[in-house]
Amino acid sequence: TKRYSITILPGDGIGPEIISVAKDVLKLIGSLEGIEFGFQEMPLGGSALDLTGVPLPDETLLAAKQSNAVLLGAIGGYKWDNNPQHLKPEKGLLQLREALKVFANLRPATVLPQLVDSSTLKKEVAEGVDLMVVRELTGGLYYGKPRGIGTNENGEEIGFNTEVYASYEIDRIARVGFETAQKRNKKLCSVDKANALEASMFWRNRVTAIASEYPDVELSHMYVDNAAMQLVRNPKQFDTILTNNMFGDILSDEASMITGSIGMLPSASLGASGPGLFEPIHGSAPDIAGEDKANPLATILSVAMLLKYGLGEENAAKRIENAVLDTLDKGFRTGDIYSAGNKLVGCKEMGEEVLKSV
Amino acid sequence: TKRYSITILPGDGIGPEIISVAKDVLKLIGSLEGIEFGFQEMPLGGSALDLTGVPLPDETLLAAKQSNAVLLGAIGGYKWDNNPQHLKPEKGLLQLREALKVFANLRPATVLPQLVDSSTLKKEVAEGVDLMVVRELTGGLYYGKPRGIGTNENGEEIGFNTEVYASYEIDRIARVGFETAQKRNKKLCSVDKANALEASMFWRNRVTAIASEYPDVELSHMYVDNAAMQLVRNPKQFDTILTNNMFGDILSDEASMITGSIGMLPSASLGASGPGLFEPIHGSAPDIAGEDKANPLATILSVAMLLKYGLGEENAAKRIENAVLDTLDKGFRTGDIYSAGNKLVGCKEMGEEVLKSV
Ligand SMILES: CC(C)[C@H](C(=O)O)[C@@H](O)C(=O)O
Ligand SMILES: CC(C)[C@H](C(=O)O)[C@@H](O)C(=O)O
Repeated sequence: TKRYSITILPGDGIGPEIISVAKDVLKLIGSLEGIEFGFQEMPLGGSALDLTGVPLPDETLLAAKQSNAVLLGAIGGYKWDNNPQHLKPEKGLLQLREALKVFANLRPATVLPQLVDSSTLKKEVAEGVDLMVVRELTGGLYYGKPRGIGTNENGEEIGFNTEVYASYEIDRIARVGFETAQKRNKKLCSVDKANALEASMFWRNRVTAIASEYPDVELSHMYVDNAAMQLVRNPKQFDTILTNNMFGDILSDEASMITGSIGMLPSASLGASGPGLFEPIHGSAPDIAGEDKANPLATILSVAMLLKYGLGEENAAKRIENAVLDTLDKGFRTGDIYSAGNKLVGCKEMGEEVLKSV
Repeated sequence: TKRYSITILPGDGIGPEIISVAKDVLKLIGSLEGIEFGFQEMPLGGSALDLTGVPLPDETLLAAKQSNAVLLGAIGGYKWDNNPQHLKPEKGLLQLREALKVFANLRPATVLPQLVDSSTLKKEVAEGVDLMVVRELTGGLYYGKPRGIGTNENGEEIGFNTEVYASYEIDRIARVGFETAQKRNKKLCSVDKANALEASMFWRNRVTAIASEYPDVELSHMYVDNAAMQLVRNPKQFDTILTNNMFGDILSDEASMITGSIGMLPSASLGASGPGLFEPIHGSAPDIAGEDKANPLATILSVAMLLKYGLGEENAAKRIENAVLDTLDKGFRTGDIYSAGNKLVGCKEMGEEVLKSV
């Protein structure tokens, strides 16, 4: 039997609840597909701060690095909102992404026929949306130096960050973009702000240069403000979107809300080698934590991405995706995706129903 | 009679068509309200590049500075897309904003009852949306130094920009935000990315400090990724949004598309003193330039903002706004806002109808 070690980072808020369900799904699929999973649960984010005083403890990072894949719940909460920057839960996640060198963040946004009504967009606009945001994850404004709060030459207090991309950083994420598009509808839209920013102009030049390696993919460029509009106006025009860390943060969240089911959307963060990091794109929802109300499907679908992109277990991944669709077909809904005529269930029960369908 | 000198910058694409209509409206309202307008038309953007080799000629800037208000059509076009950064049409606009020190950009996004169906959002989500984005316009990533394309210490080519805000820049735009909210529903939502960026943390600190001057305004903070989602999920929750230059570019365009009628939305850019800059938020639409298809209403409503915010002529502003509403009530629609049962008109005819209603 194949063996994989999985580092599990439940995190904060609803994290532990959704992770517990996802772990059960992994165990079951393992036994069905003849895969053995070893799990190591470690703290990250606010829970790590409370336990150890730092958001990414050394032990957590070591475990993550030594495993075959990392599954994360969610991090953050009001409790730590006023912490200084280096002691915020989010810092733990940002440090983890950097340390694992997972520069490529894949964020699908798909409108499932079963859930088209939960979008705030008109049905004819929302139905059939199936796009993938490829977001650069370990560079740009999030990591650029110099950064900080200080004083300028006039003695005025300033806050500052640096948007910076080196050619190799753009080239490698562009390749992921083109390769992702190749497996989809072969349309790649690179989003930047080249009419105002040199960093974006450079981005556009590099992406255009890399395009010659992928003659079968149709490349277009779009300004980020226009992209934010087009996602609302006609999201179906997009197949694969390639963009930087900051714009990707904004556009992928916007795209996810367009599907109407942010509680459904998984993500994969991948490097050139080493373990990938898999997490739902929604947050830790501290307001409903511990109430068995969270939607575990985004985390379950993150498990599917873990199997597919992290371990190359496409069969197992497909079985999980199908189980989620079956469960929706049977009418089971958590509160966030509930509509009249369906069966309202909690986090645990939704998990059990998926298990039955695997 | 009162006299004002107005610098008119038709710009590129549909700019000249919409400006010509807006000028007629200004002339008429002047004669009705006993105001005399002197107009000086100057090139900016692509047309300036073609004429003079630079996107903001000295003469244009001088005229703008010496006038009481500046009315701009739109700039940009495919023709100049591959120009270097300093010879792009957009550079002319960015230089003009900087030179006029118009740090406060007001961008209303209102769903008119007459046009609610042109939004891609469901009617119950779109109707009643009435928000104002207050965008910082002369700082942050757009203007921060160092910037450029160069080489890092490892000899790799890089593109870079600097996100930087000094306390006085945040304080003054925050005050505009609070004062705008005071005249509206007294709710100000400041949007940043304080969980990842020091520049945003500093922004949040300053905005919070300024809040004590405005005890009647309710201040909240939101991360930009969440704001991009909430604008789609429930735009009605927003009254006044305060944000930086880059985020404001993205969110105001997203908000405008939510109204379904980007061809309807004006903007005002104001400084501490000196002339303001007034322009529709839509672009130069080179694909329909010269075809008499453009919607002139955003420019006409920019004239209303010019009268109200630029010259303090509230009466005249109100008359123009009402004339636009009357024209819509009569069923006149340009192609971008057309729906069955209405009367399809071109740019000129729409202008004539508004003139009749003033
Ligand atoms: C928590 C935060 C730092 C993070 C980000 O901005 O990357 C989150 O919004 C995300 O998109 O994963
Ligand atoms: C043309 C461009 C530089 C400009 C901006 O980004 O500010 C435009 O998008 C706007 O919002 O007015």
